[in-house]
Parts: sequence; C-alpha cells; structure tokens
Amino acid sequence: MKATVSAAILAIGDELLSGRTKDKNIGFLAENLTLAGIDLKEVRIVPDEEPEIVAAVNALRARYTYVFTSGGIGPTHDDITADAISAAFGVECRHDDAAMELLGAMYARRGMEFTEARQRMARMPVGARHIPNPVSTAPGFVIGNVHVMAGVPQVFQAMVAAVLPTLSGGVPVQSRSVRSHFGEGDIGTPLGEIQKRHPETSIGSYPKFDGQNFSTEIVVRARTPEAIDAAITDVEAMLADIAARKVAPKPD
Amino acid sequence: MKATVSAAILAIGDELLSGRTKDKNIGFLAENLTLAGIDLKEVRIVPDEEPEIVAAVNALRARYTYVFTSGGIGPTHDDITADAISAAFGVECRHDDAAMELLGAMYARRGMEFTEARQRMARMPVGARHIPNPVSTAPGFVIGNVHVMAGVPQVFQAMVAAVLPTLSGGVPVQSRSVRSHFGEGDIGTPLGEIQKRHPETSIGSYPKFDGQNFSTEIVVRARTPEAIDAAITDVEAMLADIAARKVAPKPD
Repeated sequence: MKATVSAAILAIGDELLSGRTKDKNIGFLAENLTLAGIDLKEVRIVPDEEPEIVAAVNALRARYTYVFTSGGIGPTHDDITADAISAAFGVECRHDDAAMELLGAMYARRGMEFTEARQRMARMPVGARHIPNPVSTAPGFVIGNVHVMAGVPQVFQAMVAAVLPTLSGGVPVQSRSVRSHFGEGDIGTPLGEIQKRHPETSIGSYPKFDGQNFSTEIVVRARTPEAIDAAITDVEAMLADIAARKVAPKPD
Repeated sequence: MKATVSAAILAIGDELLSGRTKDKNIGFLAENLTLAGIDLKEVRIVPDEEPEIVAAVNALRARYTYVFTSGGIGPTHDDITADAISAAFGVECRHDDAAMELLGAMYARRGMEFTEARQRMARMPVGARHIPNPVSTAPGFVIGNVHVMAGVPQVFQAMVAAVLPTLSGGVPVQSRSVRSHFGEGDIGTPLGEIQKRHPETSIGSYPKFDGQNFSTEIVVRARTPEAIDAAITDVEAMLADIAARKVAPKPD
C-alpha cells in the first residue's frame, strides 16, 4: 500500500511532556487525515524551546507533503511557536497587519484593552497566510507546507476544519475489520501469509484485553474495496479453518 | 530549571497514525516520569516500518538518558519492534532461552499450543534483559538505555511499574497552580517578567475554554518548594494588581 500524500504532526508544549495535559489533538487530526486520504507518517512532541521546535519543523517539512503544528501561539512568554517557525524558514517574525486589525476590532467590540501580550497573537512569519479562528479570533497561519494551529482543542479542531478543504488529498484508505475469538498466537503465522498474498493491502491485528482474556481485531486497509474484500475472504477462511481444528476457541 | 535526567518515548504502530487507536501510554508514562524526577524531553510516533523505528531509536538513545518504546512486540507479522531494536544496536535478534521457557510453561499450563507465532514473542536482541509482564507473560526487554514495552495499555502500565524502580531519577519537579479569571492577554506581559525574575522555576500558563469564556491556569514548577513559593507570591501580587485596576475581570 503506497503512500501518496504524506503528513507529520508536531505538538508543541511542556505541559504535554510533563503529563499535565493529555493530548487530544493528535488522534483527532490523525483520523481526519486518514479520511482525507493523507497518510500521517510521523508525530513528534517537543518542549517550548526554540532550537527543538526549529530542528523538528525543518526535519519534518523536508520529508512530508504537509506538516501540522499545535500549541504555543497564545499571548504569554512561553508561546514561542511563531518565532520558532520564522527562524526555521529564515524569515522575520512580525505583527501581521491584518491580524492586528482582526484582534484590535474584536477587543474593541468587547471593551477590552488590546494589550502588548494580546498583540503577540498577531505575530507570524512574513509571508504567512492566515488560518481563520472562528472560536477566539487569533489566527493560525500557513507558511510553505507548515500549518500552525492552536493547542486548545476547540480552537485546534476549528482550524483543522478550515485547513482540510485546502489540502490536496490522496485516494482515501478504506478499512474493514473482523473480530476474532482467537489470540494473535493462533492467527499470527497464517495472517502473515495472507498479508504476503495481498501486498496492496495493509493488514493489522490489534489485541484487546478485557481484564481476563485477549481477543483480536483484524483490520484490512486498502485504497479499493476489491482489494479489501479479497483479503477479508482469506481472513475469514483462515478463521474458519482454525475453528474447525479446535474443540473450543482459546484466546491468548 | 536544568534537566538532570532526561527521557524520550517512542510509540510504534500504524494504528496510532491512522487515528484508529488513541494513544493512552504517552500521557501515563509522562506523568510517572515527572513524579520520578525524570524530564521527558521528546516523544515520537512512527509506523511499523523497520527503517523508521531504527532511525528514531538511534536518534533518541544517543540524546537522552532513557528511551522507552511502546508497541510492536506481539506475535503477528506487523510486530517488528524486536527486529528493529536489534538492527539499531547492530546485534542479532533471536529466541531468548528464558523467554521461551516462560512462554512454553504458560501455554502448557493453559493447554494451548506454543505456536510459531507465539514463539515470536520470545525474540529479542542478544544481551537484552527481561522486563517482566505479570499480565500476559511475554516479556519486554532492556538493551542499553532502551526499554521496550508492549502497546496494550494494561501490559504497558505493568511494565512501567516494573521498570521505574530500576531508573536513576533526578530531584522530582514539584508544582503549584493558581487559577485566574483573567485571560492570558491580561497576564501575559507581567507573567513573562515574573518568569525572568525566577529563572529557577518554569512558569506555564494554560488557557481553558468552557465553550464561552477563556480562563487561565498558571502553573509554577521547580525542584524546591522555596523557589515555587517565591514565584507564586509574585503571581498572586500580579493578579491582585490587575484586579485592582479593573472594574470587573474580563476573560480573553
């Protein structure tokens, strides 16, 4: 199963690495990219430290079609993503005129002071395009193939919704799954043979443990329903064959 | 705030990148490392592809005190972590005698066949030490500074419990937090000044959004309670000062 359009996610924030905040953005975007036919190939989480962000962004943007970042675009001293992305691209980071206008108007409407800290949220690399933020106004931005989005999940999700229609997706990967009472120990070897016979599919097996017993979910992914059906037929035959040879199914 | 003992997590598995499985191991281990005084500095998620796993393991093990991996040590064809770790260390991957005995005895007790697929779970790099698995027997392993653990959360957590006492921890980071009605736009600039005055602390601010309003949690981390108290005193004075200057607090 060849990747056509590839992507990486870079989540930025000390709070993710300390375990204080449990990330919700990676799984959300992963699912949405899969639906759009874009293969997520790598995820990294790095701290709020400019050299770390710069190194990760430059490694990922050279390698994948798209890069998506989350976090570090708020108004406080530890929000350094705009600076780090600018440094990665070797361009100046400055207050964007259109973003200053959007934010200034929003705070004016709400009778709030447009403080120096709030103005920080208008900073972005020169030449970047906005990603609209319908939740709290302060925009994300796109420069090159890098999409810079907020870390707060509600804002991140709204930005993803704005960005997805702008991406060139591939043929979406479809999947079908079969639940097996047998453990991976019973199905492992024949499943490996089925994978070899169906190179245009990607077959995964996922053990589940309910506190007492393991069972297995077998998932076949491919870009055509015909490829999926052919592999599923072989998987079902394999399971029937194991069942016929056992008195009773025993999970791993 | 200087790191003393550092760590990275490498989560392995196509199912994490497709969004089919939402990772639960990263946040769990992150929290436990923080409690042990070990600074988690980087996380990566890579697919079940040997060159990707090898490159990530070699990059991370050269850079951090400890590396922890999750996933890919089951009995099926897509479980290639033992091979990849062996390749990364340039040593042979083979069936470990002690692991074969453990697994053989367990399947014999349960009257189950010790299939070729199940025997795969005894494979590890030559010279590796076991990480015990009280949940489902098949051991994880340690080679050099790399700890290889299962992806199933119940098994992963049991392995983490076995591994943690073997690590040399640093001085644990402690934290205290203050909730603020003010948005980051109000507190951003003075909070940056407080951070500058207290370099031995790490001050983070985390916006929360309840669907209508933003509030902010200010978290001060340091390795001594004195350092935390001194910074918190300044944070509380700053919040009182903003409150005195406003008729009513307004969130961002």
